[in-house]
Amino acid sequence: MPHGQWIVDEADLAPFMADESHVPGARPRAAARPTSPEDLRALVAWATAEGIGLVPRGTGTGKAGGCLARPQDIVVDLGAWPGAIEVNPRDLCLTAPASALLKDVKAAADAAGFFYPPDPNSWDQCAFGGTLATNAGGPNACKYGMTRHWVLAVEALLADGEIHHFGIASVKANAGPCMGQLLLGSEGIFGMILGATVRLAPKPIERLTLLLPVARFEELLELPGRLCAAGYLPCAFEFWDPAVLAELRAHGPEAARRMPGEALALLEFDDRGCTSEAFLDGLVAVLGDAAAELQAATDHRQREALWAIRRMTSVFLKERYPRKVSEDVVVPRSRLPEFFEGLQRLEIPCVTYGHLGDGNLHVNLLSAGELDAATLETKLMALFRLCVELGGTLSGEHGVGLAKREALIAFTPAADLAQFRALKAALDPRNIFNPGKVL
Amino acid sequence: MPHGQWIVDEADLAPFMADESHVPGARPRAAARPTSPEDLRALVAWATAEGIGLVPRGTGTGKAGGCLARPQDIVVDLGAWPGAIEVNPRDLCLTAPASALLKDVKAAADAAGFFYPPDPNSWDQCAFGGTLATNAGGPNACKYGMTRHWVLAVEALLADGEIHHFGIASVKANAGPCMGQLLLGSEGIFGMILGATVRLAPKPIERLTLLLPVARFEELLELPGRLCAAGYLPCAFEFWDPAVLAELRAHGPEAARRMPGEALALLEFDDRGCTSEAFLDGLVAVLGDAAAELQAATDHRQREALWAIRRMTSVFLKERYPRKVSEDVVVPRSRLPEFFEGLQRLEIPCVTYGHLGDGNLHVNLLSAGELDAATLETKLMALFRLCVELGGTLSGEHGVGLAKREALIAFTPAADLAQFRALKAALDPRNIFNPGKVL
Repeated sequence: MPHGQWIVDEADLAPFMADESHVPGARPRAAARPTSPEDLRALVAWATAEGIGLVPRGTGTGKAGGCLARPQDIVVDLGAWPGAIEVNPRDLCLTAPASALLKDVKAAADAAGFFYPPDPNSWDQCAFGGTLATNAGGPNACKYGMTRHWVLAVEALLADGEIHHFGIASVKANAGPCMGQLLLGSEGIFGMILGATVRLAPKPIERLTLLLPVARFEELLELPGRLCAAGYLPCAFEFWDPAVLAELRAHGPEAARRMPGEALALLEFDDRGCTSEAFLDGLVAVLGDAAAELQAATDHRQREALWAIRRMTSVFLKERYPRKVSEDVVVPRSRLPEFFEGLQRLEIPCVTYGHLGDGNLHVNLLSAGELDAATLETKLMALFRLCVELGGTLSGEHGVGLAKREALIAFTPAADLAQFRALKAALDPRNIFNPGKVL
Repeated sequence: MPHGQWIVDEADLAPFMADESHVPGARPRAAARPTSPEDLRALVAWATAEGIGLVPRGTGTGKAGGCLARPQDIVVDLGAWPGAIEVNPRDLCLTAPASALLKDVKAAADAAGFFYPPDPNSWDQCAFGGTLATNAGGPNACKYGMTRHWVLAVEALLADGEIHHFGIASVKANAGPCMGQLLLGSEGIFGMILGATVRLAPKPIERLTLLLPVARFEELLELPGRLCAAGYLPCAFEFWDPAVLAELRAHGPEAARRMPGEALALLEFDDRGCTSEAFLDGLVAVLGDAAAELQAATDHRQREALWAIRRMTSVFLKERYPRKVSEDVVVPRSRLPEFFEGLQRLEIPCVTYGHLGDGNLHVNLLSAGELDAATLETKLMALFRLCVELGGTLSGEHGVGLAKREALIAFTPAADLAQFRALKAALDPRNIFNPGKVL
C-alpha cells in the first residue's frame, strides 16, 4: 500500500460496512484517508497496477449502497480531504471540498445572504461530495432543480491519477465537452469528485405553507400544472395518496385522524411577497374548489405544525410496519392515475407519498417483511417495470449503487447500456473506480 | 449514397457553405434531409463503411462554424426531421423535435401559460436542435441558467445507428449516467441530437427595467452580488464598460451622448410584484449611491426605450467599425478589474459590453480589420489567455466549432484533452459525427 493515512484494523473498518441502504456490505481490505494530490496519485497508480477497486465514501448516508466495498476493495474516505468552504459574493458562487458537510455549505451560503437549494433528507448529516456524486435532490427540486443544476465547476480525480478541474465560476461556459455534468450523479464510476463550485440563489425572505385536503385524488394531480400556468411555482409540493391517508386515519396519531378529504397535499412557496393577502387570494382563485379545506401558515410555528404531518407519516409507518420496504421511484405526474391502477396488480398493500411537484414517489410495500426474498424481488421488479412503462424511472434521487444495479440493467435498453459501458471503459479502462456499481 | 432526400446540386448546396461566424465554409459533398429513423440508420451505416463525416445543421445561425462541412463531408439538414411541439401542462414540460424553431417552442410554452427561458440572440431564427447542440444561452441565463438547465430528456442518434432516449419527463431521475447532459453543448461530436423534452417555468406577469449609470465602473462590478444577497436576482443584467460608453458619447447617436456616468448597466426583473413601489423602494435602498441617476420603466413603451440603447450599441459599432471583431468570452465578475487592466496590454482598441449578470463579455476589437491575419490571431490568443488566466473561458455561449478549436486545444490542459478524446473515441470510434470540430 502506498504511503498515507490508512485504516486497517478490523474494528476500525466496521463503520465502512454499511450505509443507509438495506444492502449488506463487506469489510473492505482497508480504508485510505487521502490528504493531498500525491496521496491520490499514489492510490491510483497502486490500484491500476494491482487491479484494486477504489470506493469513495463521505459520511455514509447514501441510500443505494454506492459507498459499500467488496472484501478486495479499498474505501477512500474523503473526510480528511483538505479545503475550506468559500463564498464568493461577487461571483454568486461557493466553493467547497467533498469533505465539507452539506449543512455547513448551506449555512455558509445563508450567512453570506444567499441560498444553496439542494435539500436531500440527509441534509444535516451528508457530505457535500456525496451530494455531487449522487446528484442529490429533495423537496426543493420541484422549483430549484437537482444538485446538477447548481454546479458550475467540478474537481475530480480521474484514472490518469490527476486532479482535473472542469468548468468555471460562471453559469456561462461553452468551451468543450461538459465533463463535469457527466461526473455529477455518476456515483463514482467514472472518477472521484473532490469538490465543486456551485451557484447561489437569493435567500427567500418569506414563506407561505399550505395544507390542502382534496375531495378527489384526481384533482390533486392536475394542480402542479394549473398553479404553474397561473404563475405559482411552489418550492415544495408534497402529497399523500388515498391509501396512506386511510392508514393514517385508521391507525395514525390523533391529528391525522381528523384530516378531511380523499388525498392531501402540502405546498410551500418562497417567492418575495408570498405572505401577502394578495398572493394567497390569487392562489385560492386558481385552486378553486380544491381550496375548500385549505389551511395556510405564514409564521414559523404554524408552518412547523403543518410540516409535522409530513414527518409523522414516516415515523408512524416505520413503527407500525417495521419490515416495510420503501422505494424511491419516479412517474411523470400525467401518468399517476395509471400508476395507481397498476399498483393494485402488485397484490401487496402499498401506500404512497412523496414529492408530487416532480413525480418522485416513496412507495411503501407495507407487508414486504412477510414475503420471501424471491417474491419480494419479483414484486419490486414489477414496481420498477410499471414506472418505466409509464415513462418514469427506478430512482428519483437515491441513485442506483448496488441496490438497483440489477434493475437498471434489466430495464435499460441494451443499446443504451452498451454506450454507458463504452464511457466507463474509456474513462476507467482498468475498472478501478467504484467497480461493480451502477452498471 | 443511401436512399432518402438528397441535395446534390452545386447551387442548392451553396447555402450550406456558411453560418453566422466568420469561418469560411467549403461546399459539402451533398446534404441529406432525413425524415425517418431508417434514413438515419442508413446514413450512419454508409458513413461508417466509407469513413464519411456527418455534419448536423439546423437554420445555420451558429456563431462558431460548428455546422460547416469539409468537401468530403455530408451535411445532415435536420429541417425536415418530423415531430410536433407538444406542451404537457401536467408534467410542466414541452417536447419538440430538433427541426422546430426556438421561437415556435417559446410561443407554444407561452400560449399554454408557461415560459421557456433560453433566449439566445438568434431566438427568432434558430432551430431548437441547434440550441441543444450548442447549449444556447442569452441574457436570461443570469437568472434562469443555460439550455442544459432546462433539458429533462434528449433524443439522439449515436454511432450505433440507433435513436436513443436519455432522461424522462421529470426533473428527478438518477438511474444511470446522464448521457443527455454530455450530448448537450457537445456541438454534435458525440452524436446528433434529434429532439428534447424541456422543463417549463411560470410565465412572468410583470417586468421592471432599470437603466443605471454609475459614477465608477468598480461600483457596477459589486452590484450583482449585492443585489442577490438582498434577495434581488435580475433576469437580465447588461453592462457597458467605460470604453464603449466613451465611444458612444463621442460618436454615437444623440440619446447616447447625453448618458451620465463612467459606466452603465441595464437591469430587468421579472418577479411577481416587481412593478410595485415597495419592490423599487427596496431595490433603491440596496443600490444606495449607485441609484442616483436611475431610470425605471414598468410599461412596454418605457422598457423599449431603455433597451434601445442596448440594441443601438451593436448597430453603431458595426457601422463605425465594419471590420471590427467581436469575441464571446467569459471572465468571473470578481476578476473583471484585472481583466480590464489586462486588455490594455493587448495594445489594440477594445470596447466591451455584454452580460454582467454572468460575466459573459462581448469584447470588440475595433481596429481588427487593419491588422494582418497573423497579428490578429496573436491578439485573439492573448485575449483568450487573459480570460483563462483569470478563471474564465474562451466561449460563454457561442461554442467552439471551428472558430475556436485551435484556441481550445491551446488553452486546455493536455490531461483534460486526453479525457475528451477518450470520450470521443468511445462514442464515435469511426469519427463520423462532425469530424474536425471542437477537439
